[in-house]
Amino acid sequence: MKIAFAGEKGAFAELAAAQYFGSRHVLSPVQEFDDVFKTVALGKAEQGIIPIENSLTGSIHQNYDLLLDGNLCITGEIFLRVAHCLIANHGVRLRDVKRVFSHPQGLAQCSRYLKKMRNVERVPVSNTAVAARTIKDRQLLDAAAIASLQAAIDYDMNVLAQNIEDNKANITRFIILGRKPASPARVKTCKTSVVFSLKNIPGALFKALSVFALRDIDLLKIESRPVHGKPFEYLFYLDFAGDCGDDRQTNALNHLKEITMFLRTFGSYERGKLVEPECKKR
Amino acid sequence: MKIAFAGEKGAFAELAAAQYFGSRHVLSPVQEFDDVFKTVALGKAEQGIIPIENSLTGSIHQNYDLLLDGNLCITGEIFLRVAHCLIANHGVRLRDVKRVFSHPQGLAQCSRYLKKMRNVERVPVSNTAVAARTIKDRQLLDAAAIASLQAAIDYDMNVLAQNIEDNKANITRFIILGRKPASPARVKTCKTSVVFSLKNIPGALFKALSVFALRDIDLLKIESRPVHGKPFEYLFYLDFAGDCGDDRQTNALNHLKEITMFLRTFGSYERGKLVEPECKKR
Repeated sequence: MKIAFAGEKGAFAELAAAQYFGSRHVLSPVQEFDDVFKTVALGKAEQGIIPIENSLTGSIHQNYDLLLDGNLCITGEIFLRVAHCLIANHGVRLRDVKRVFSHPQGLAQCSRYLKKMRNVERVPVSNTAVAARTIKDRQLLDAAAIASLQAAIDYDMNVLAQNIEDNKANITRFIILGRKPASPARVKTCKTSVVFSLKNIPGALFKALSVFALRDIDLLKIESRPVHGKPFEYLFYLDFAGDCGDDRQTNALNHLKEITMFLRTFGSYERGKLVEPECKKR
Repeated sequence: MKIAFAGEKGAFAELAAAQYFGSRHVLSPVQEFDDVFKTVALGKAEQGIIPIENSLTGSIHQNYDLLLDGNLCITGEIFLRVAHCLIANHGVRLRDVKRVFSHPQGLAQCSRYLKKMRNVERVPVSNTAVAARTIKDRQLLDAAAIASLQAAIDYDMNVLAQNIEDNKANITRFIILGRKPASPARVKTCKTSVVFSLKNIPGALFKALSVFALRDIDLLKIESRPVHGKPFEYLFYLDFAGDCGDDRQTNALNHLKEITMFLRTFGSYERGKLVEPECKKR
C-alpha cells in the first residue's frame, strides 16, 4: 500500500506513518499538504498522513480547510512526540560547533539549549532533514543540525546530544486520510470527528452540546473558529467518543442536524496512541 | 509609554502595536515571546504585545502557557491582516529575480505566486525583515524578499508586487499584556478571557457552559486542550461577551467556580478591530 506524506525522508510525518502503518508499506513523499490530499483523492496513493494539531502550536486550521474542501475521510490517528537531536559530521566535537542549522521551528524549540552553547550562529533552512543533508554534503566541520535521530542514521552522522528540546510535552497529532471510511472494530476506543456551524443565536452552542450530554457521550475536543469576513459566524470542530454507526451516536448526529446550519462527519476511527519516534537503518 | 514586542523592526507585531497604541509610544523589540512577558512583569515596559491566534494556523498554545505561568493580564486585542509583498533593490525587475528570501512561513503562504514565477530558488531566513535587510546589505540584483510593505520603506527598497499571499483571510489576533487589568469603558463591546479545567465526568463541559447559557451570555471562543502526560485532563480556553466586573458576568464566574477544578480570569477588555497593516516613513 502506498502512503503519501508531505516533506522528505526523515520528516516527522514519515516517522509517524512508519509507526502507524508498519514497514510493509511504501511511504511516498510529496511537496505540500494539498498534494497529500490530491494524491489520495486521485488514487495515486491508498492513504495519506497529515499533522492536524500540536500540543504547543495548536490546531492546524489550514489542514482542516483542506479536509473541508475535499471528500476524504479520517480513518485513523497517531500522536508522535517531537524529539530533537544535535547531529554533526563524524569527528566534530560539541566545542567545534559554531553554527547550528535547522528549520526555524527546530531552532525555536531548542532555544534554551542553544543559549547555553554560547555564540553559535543560528542558520534557518527549509526543514530539519535539509539541515542535516547540507552539513553532510558540504562536509562542514564547524556546524551541527537540529534534526531527528532518524536523520542522523539516514545521513550517517554523529549524535552530539539527544532530547535537546525545551519542552518535552511537544506532541503532534497526525490523522490518516482515506477515500472510504474506516470500519473501527473496537467501538470502546473509537472516536468520531465532525465540523459544524450554528445560527448566531444565544445558547446555540449549548443546545448543540446538549445532544451529546443528553446521551452521555464524552466530548474529546472542541474548538470554535471564527469565519473571517463573516462576523458572528463560527465553525466548530468536535471530536466525541464512539462510532457514528452506533445507535446513540447516530441519534446524537441526527439531533445535531436539527440545530446546525451545516454539519459534516469526517469519520469514525480508533483512538490513536502516543508513540516515541522510532529509528531504523535503511 | 514603552511597549515590548518580540522580533525586530518591521515585524508584524510591531505593525499591530503601532496601530493599537498610535505613534506616541516607544515600541521596544525583545528577542522571544517569554522576553515580552519578563520585560512587562519586571516593569521595564508598561505593556507588551504577543500573537495569540492566527486564522490559518490556529491558537498559539505556547503563548497561552506563558500567560498561565505568569501574573499578567490581557488588557486589549487587535486583529491584523497579514499581507505580503515582493520587494527588491531599486533597478531590479521581476524577470531578474532568481532567488526569493523569506521566513519559511512567508514562503509557504505565497506558494502559489512563487510557483507562477518558475525556477526561482526559495531561500529560508529567520524572519521577513532579515530577508529584506540581507538583500539590501549585499546589494543583490538577482534576489527579492517576501516581507511587509513597511520593510520596503524601512530598507528603501522597491515593491515589485503586493498582496501576493495565497489566502487573503490570513489574520493574526494579537493581545495586549499589562500588569493591571484594564477598566473597559463600554461594556457593550467588551469581552472576558478565562481558562479552566474540569473534573473528568460526562457532561462536565455542558454544565460549565450552562452558567453562560442560563444568563444569556454569548460565547466568543471555546477551545479544549489536552493536558499531555495527564490523560483525560483538559484545559479550556473561553472568551465570552461582557465585563467580569458586571453583575451577570460575576455571577456566571462564581457559578463556574463551583464546577471547575481550576479557574483563572485573564481580564476584561474592549473587543479588537480588524486592521490592515499601515505603513509609515520613519
